[in-house]
Amino acid sequence: MDALSGLIDALRGLPGVGPKSAQRLAYQLLQKRSRGLHLAACLHDAMQSVVHCARCNNYTTSQVCSLCNHLERDHTLLCVVEGPADVAAIEQSGMYRGDYYVLMGKISPLEGVGPEQLALQGLQQRIEQQAVTEVILALSPTLEGETTVHFIHECLQPYAVRITQLAHGIPSGGALAFLDANTIGNALRHRRITFEHNTTI
Amino acid sequence: MDALSGLIDALRGLPGVGPKSAQRLAYQLLQKRSRGLHLAACLHDAMQSVVHCARCNNYTTSQVCSLCNHLERDHTLLCVVEGPADVAAIEQSGMYRGDYYVLMGKISPLEGVGPEQLALQGLQQRIEQQAVTEVILALSPTLEGETTVHFIHECLQPYAVRITQLAHGIPSGGALAFLDANTIGNALRHRRITFEHNTTI
Repeated sequence: MDALSGLIDALRGLPGVGPKSAQRLAYQLLQKRSRGLHLAACLHDAMQSVVHCARCNNYTTSQVCSLCNHLERDHTLLCVVEGPADVAAIEQSGMYRGDYYVLMGKISPLEGVGPEQLALQGLQQRIEQQAVTEVILALSPTLEGETTVHFIHECLQPYAVRITQLAHGIPSGGALAFLDANTIGNALRHRRITFEHNTTI
Repeated sequence: MDALSGLIDALRGLPGVGPKSAQRLAYQLLQKRSRGLHLAACLHDAMQSVVHCARCNNYTTSQVCSLCNHLERDHTLLCVVEGPADVAAIEQSGMYRGDYYVLMGKISPLEGVGPEQLALQGLQQRIEQQAVTEVILALSPTLEGETTVHFIHECLQPYAVRITQLAHGIPSGGALAFLDANTIGNALRHRRITFEHNTTI
């Protein structure tokens, strides 16, 4: 296999990249070689130097990541997420100032991922070592996510912590007519009182 | 910028990859490091070793590409295309056994690509050196493609070659109701007689 077919083949290994896109990517990178070389160097660098944070298990290039090292965050709050992208998404909301714990996956019997593949021991250590008062389970509301939540609930039984989960309901900007029945059902079940005419006064 | 942000940033340089996809790609590559390292090596290799074929201008790792070196191809036929992906697409049709010439672009005043940026000199040399009898202009039926076709027509005036273009019409498998008016117009204009009742017999 020559260098060009090798590159196209390696690009096909990327998630969501089929044979046509791999070919297109390769040709476009060859038209901008400096960009291709830069990407090669960045890839090599990252693969060699990115490690898991000793505290939250997220990706980082130092021993402890910048979020865990942050002095102004509330270390008594611990938000458990599936992956690094979830940390980024929650940070973008600007509504959370506690710590994270990244499982790097979720229990999925179909994909052969059992509880032992998740970084659950580290989670227990994390709770033991720090004065965590609340664990927020911010997992995706899927079958796998809920299985994982159930398992973590059991793991955390021995600890004196409050366990919470993200609210379920209609997403911001979601047109009601296009939402699925489950979402609307959850939103109805967890509806909030926003005004009440008090007849006793 | 640390290695992880550097990688996400470099991945954003890929066509069609936005900030979210770049992040997702980076995390997925970090979960399969050997694949990431392999891609880095392939990228580096290809950027360093892929050159333009001395005859057809297509990408290759040798001086003359395998298609140009092929003994059983008809070197009197020359198909002019915009890019390497077009060569691959035409080869897949299995309907062409001639040579190619790859322009590596098309005239596009909006993107600042003039005739001088295209490999037109090489095309003229190619026609002069080989006994080319027919030049098939297989460019995209867009404004830029047609401008390029027009320009090549003028460049090839001095040469005793037949110039042809791909047939325009309805694509295979295309539902008529969903085709644009131009395509249907062209298909009508270039309609073929497939049966004629000869009343004079």
